[in-house]
Amino acid sequence: MGATADTDRMRWQRETLEPALTKAPERAATFTTISGHPIHRLYTPEDLAALSAEADIAEPGRFPYTRGIHASGYAGKLWTMRQFAGFGTPQETNARYKALLAAGGTGLSVAFDLPTLMGRDPDHDLSLGEVGKCGVSIASLADMEALFEGIDLGAITTSMTINAPAAMIFAMYLVVAERQGVDWRQISGTIQNDILKEYIAQKEFIYPPRPSMRLVTDTFAFCTREVPRWNTISVSGYHIREAGATAIQELAFTLRDGIEYVQWGVEAGLDVDAFVPRISFFFNAHSDFFEEIAKYRAARRIWARVMRDRFGAKDERSWKLRFHTQTAGVSLTAQQPWNNVVRTAIQALSGVLGGTQSLHTNSLDEALALPTEEAATLALRTQQVLAFESGVTDHVDPFGGSYFVEALTREMEEGAIAYFDQIDAVGGMVAAIERGFPQNEIAEASYRLQQAIERREKTIVGVNDFVQREDTPIPTLYVDEQAAAAQLARLRDLRASRDQARVRGALDAMKAAAEGRDNLMPPILEAVRAYATLGEMCDALREVWGEYEEMAVI
Amino acid sequence: MGATADTDRMRWQRETLEPALTKAPERAATFTTISGHPIHRLYTPEDLAALSAEADIAEPGRFPYTRGIHASGYAGKLWTMRQFAGFGTPQETNARYKALLAAGGTGLSVAFDLPTLMGRDPDHDLSLGEVGKCGVSIASLADMEALFEGIDLGAITTSMTINAPAAMIFAMYLVVAERQGVDWRQISGTIQNDILKEYIAQKEFIYPPRPSMRLVTDTFAFCTREVPRWNTISVSGYHIREAGATAIQELAFTLRDGIEYVQWGVEAGLDVDAFVPRISFFFNAHSDFFEEIAKYRAARRIWARVMRDRFGAKDERSWKLRFHTQTAGVSLTAQQPWNNVVRTAIQALSGVLGGTQSLHTNSLDEALALPTEEAATLALRTQQVLAFESGVTDHVDPFGGSYFVEALTREMEEGAIAYFDQIDAVGGMVAAIERGFPQNEIAEASYRLQQAIERREKTIVGVNDFVQREDTPIPTLYVDEQAAAAQLARLRDLRASRDQARVRGALDAMKAAAEGRDNLMPPILEAVRAYATLGEMCDALREVWGEYEEMAVI
Repeated sequence: MGATADTDRMRWQRETLEPALTKAPERAATFTTISGHPIHRLYTPEDLAALSAEADIAEPGRFPYTRGIHASGYAGKLWTMRQFAGFGTPQETNARYKALLAAGGTGLSVAFDLPTLMGRDPDHDLSLGEVGKCGVSIASLADMEALFEGIDLGAITTSMTINAPAAMIFAMYLVVAERQGVDWRQISGTIQNDILKEYIAQKEFIYPPRPSMRLVTDTFAFCTREVPRWNTISVSGYHIREAGATAIQELAFTLRDGIEYVQWGVEAGLDVDAFVPRISFFFNAHSDFFEEIAKYRAARRIWARVMRDRFGAKDERSWKLRFHTQTAGVSLTAQQPWNNVVRTAIQALSGVLGGTQSLHTNSLDEALALPTEEAATLALRTQQVLAFESGVTDHVDPFGGSYFVEALTREMEEGAIAYFDQIDAVGGMVAAIERGFPQNEIAEASYRLQQAIERREKTIVGVNDFVQREDTPIPTLYVDEQAAAAQLARLRDLRASRDQARVRGALDAMKAAAEGRDNLMPPILEAVRAYATLGEMCDALREVWGEYEEMAVI
Repeated sequence: MGATADTDRMRWQRETLEPALTKAPERAATFTTISGHPIHRLYTPEDLAALSAEADIAEPGRFPYTRGIHASGYAGKLWTMRQFAGFGTPQETNARYKALLAAGGTGLSVAFDLPTLMGRDPDHDLSLGEVGKCGVSIASLADMEALFEGIDLGAITTSMTINAPAAMIFAMYLVVAERQGVDWRQISGTIQNDILKEYIAQKEFIYPPRPSMRLVTDTFAFCTREVPRWNTISVSGYHIREAGATAIQELAFTLRDGIEYVQWGVEAGLDVDAFVPRISFFFNAHSDFFEEIAKYRAARRIWARVMRDRFGAKDERSWKLRFHTQTAGVSLTAQQPWNNVVRTAIQALSGVLGGTQSLHTNSLDEALALPTEEAATLALRTQQVLAFESGVTDHVDPFGGSYFVEALTREMEEGAIAYFDQIDAVGGMVAAIERGFPQNEIAEASYRLQQAIERREKTIVGVNDFVQREDTPIPTLYVDEQAAAAQLARLRDLRASRDQARVRGALDAMKAAAEGRDNLMPPILEAVRAYATLGEMCDALREVWGEYEEMAVI
């Protein structure tokens, strides 16, 4: 078949394409995706020759899950419409959550402010001007209680984008559930808890990589026993991509981070099938429609094979890669912001067609400010139009068999595996990060993309072409500057009213655990119940582990 | 291969799907497209068994053009971004055209007001309240000159949505070109000129079908000799679909209309390869993403085979179906109008992935009023984001080989051919229309869809679900009520200043031609040059041919 197909393509090139090109040349000498990946002139049955319909593509719900992890796709269950949101005080964000749920949102996703992400209290020097600014401020269990006031943690799922202090924030959530009378065995959701991508891309780390990895494996071990439906980690390509990575880099570094967590979990003594089923992923939906779809399909196939063959996982739940998707914030423009609705719709469609389990669609105003309620609602409506009007939920993986998409899926897979080999050769992802390898690869890719945009080889509508002199202004969210003052006052009251001896005892117990090898979650939970602040808990561990300083990337 | 694949699918059903369904049932017992076309649970290589990769799918640019008429797809040339626009006076519309061209639009598309579409002058009794309301008012050559003032007809292409009076409006355009010094052999564009779909769906007819068909074949013959780059007809499924047809009905009735025009042209003595290459098509891009893509792919394959095999066309330009696409106006909602930006983006993407040659994207406010300039610009930006940011223009037909899309393409084709057989059995499309056959089929389909929406089996976001109590109001276009008065004054001046004897002579010559068999275009051109009004020219033919009265549809 290969030989015949090759003849067909050659004949087509000679008889059809070349005469056409002499009459009308192509717009460019070569075409590449936004990642710079080359796109060939034509994909034919020849491109499928290296793939087995049985072993490589297979039916949905069957290993290696190229066509999806669910046999019935979205015919069974739609993706979760999970809109990332948070700003100001816990009370303000609580009101936004109730609005999103009332508008038909089906999951919550907490955006924390920078002090929270960095494990600092609102009254820390470095928190000045940042409290409640880019997310909600959570300083203690009292704030977490206010954040979920009137929301039944047994009835919703919650995603929390938190990494360095993930264990402490998760502990606060668990105690809120406990006080609502909701069994930990019933709650479901995700903590991002992906510290490796912080060193690679997002840079919101506290401790050095190795103790940070222990915090991660401690949450794996704890949840395996106590919170079995919780997704203990969301291994994130999103921030890697936003930092300028290519699609293949996003795919490769994210999955290799996942492999690293599994490796450390196994080395910490966990049974692979006991904790891997609770690992989930988080990908970007960038602008290049088919490259993204191929990326998701490749991700499933790679993960399934790595878990089975490299780690010997026997449980099919360990083989099935589940992922959340967020449309590409970096693709949004401050110029002509309504164009962002279009970008987001197309990006969201790629995530859906790629089989995402949950989705955040960005609001049109996110390049300007935090989203207004109107903008956040339109972003949710975007998902609803896709889910209920476009018909794309009525079948599974429309790209099975497509010469182009199957070939591109294969190319994404090969590109990722080539990166795995390089990272394995230096001893794994922690070692590669310590050498600055993924950081350098991303910096180079980001530079190439910026150059392409500056040279106008890649067009951004409204930015380097189709520019308008004046944009119609859009309303943006005004975050009350009283939020920071309110949080500081609450924190002062908290410190004045709690049992200080209990707090001190709990923090000492955390330090002792950090110095030894016991699981950290029980002493963290005790500190949370004592109303220790996030900053106090993080400082306790800083005292033991120190802080990470990034080496210069060459 | 069929037997093995069947076994694969059966095994998948038994081993993978059924256990999954026992754990989580599907959302519905059956899934259908918005047209009610059933979608199967799974598409596998088995679904390709009946198709030949060589004969049925083939490479782009090769018969039967399933994957596109151009070998290099959009790598050679992007589609034309052609935004339908017109309102008020010719002067107001001229200003909008200049704005669209300045914003990067690459073609013009004229929307005429109802009096113009019906061949009535602004001072006709039935024109009251309609002059310039839903389109631009064009009463004579003087208006056409104003419409294109400062726009070089040699440098742009223009589409004109006009049917019953198409020949007269086209003649005005030709005379404007003549006066600009542009050779008729160089101008390019389209007149819709598709009277059959008026009887079927749009209902803007003047004369009975048979003399109307003669006007059409006269434009074919005239352009073949004098305006060789002009698209003499745009056979339109758009209005058929908007009237409530299914995707298969749109496909079937539109292509069968095309066959009817070819048949009448051949019977009028034209050589098939002399006029068929200038026939183009116009399809809707409705909400069901993959059904639309399959429809476009099926349309190309059907047309290529019918032209070659039924009509013996030898020129490959006769085989290649070219089409314009407009997103579905009927899908837009007055409620939560910003959701329309999302709908339009997804619909536009289906047109692009289906290989359209030109595209109109609706403005978000079209369910409320004529588009404002801001809304029209955003609609154009939607196309630009698709063209320049989504990467979908860098390869040809991503669906070649897709089990699902190839199968759906085949099903669309079979559905259309079944309708052809029914229409051929009653003696062709004019005869079928006279019996009310397509009208009844569409009415039934429209009723079924309305029922599905009322029963909430089909969700329309913001209409029958996700309803908001209050919508944020959007600005809408205010059409100056002075437009009608201005047009009446211009018309009065025209009638007072022209050479009346020349007008009368020209109109008499038109009537004589209509009574005989000579081509009508030369006397129409002469009447236009004499500044006969559109109403006067149409009345001349009314006197000879009478007016059509629709029979009741049972």
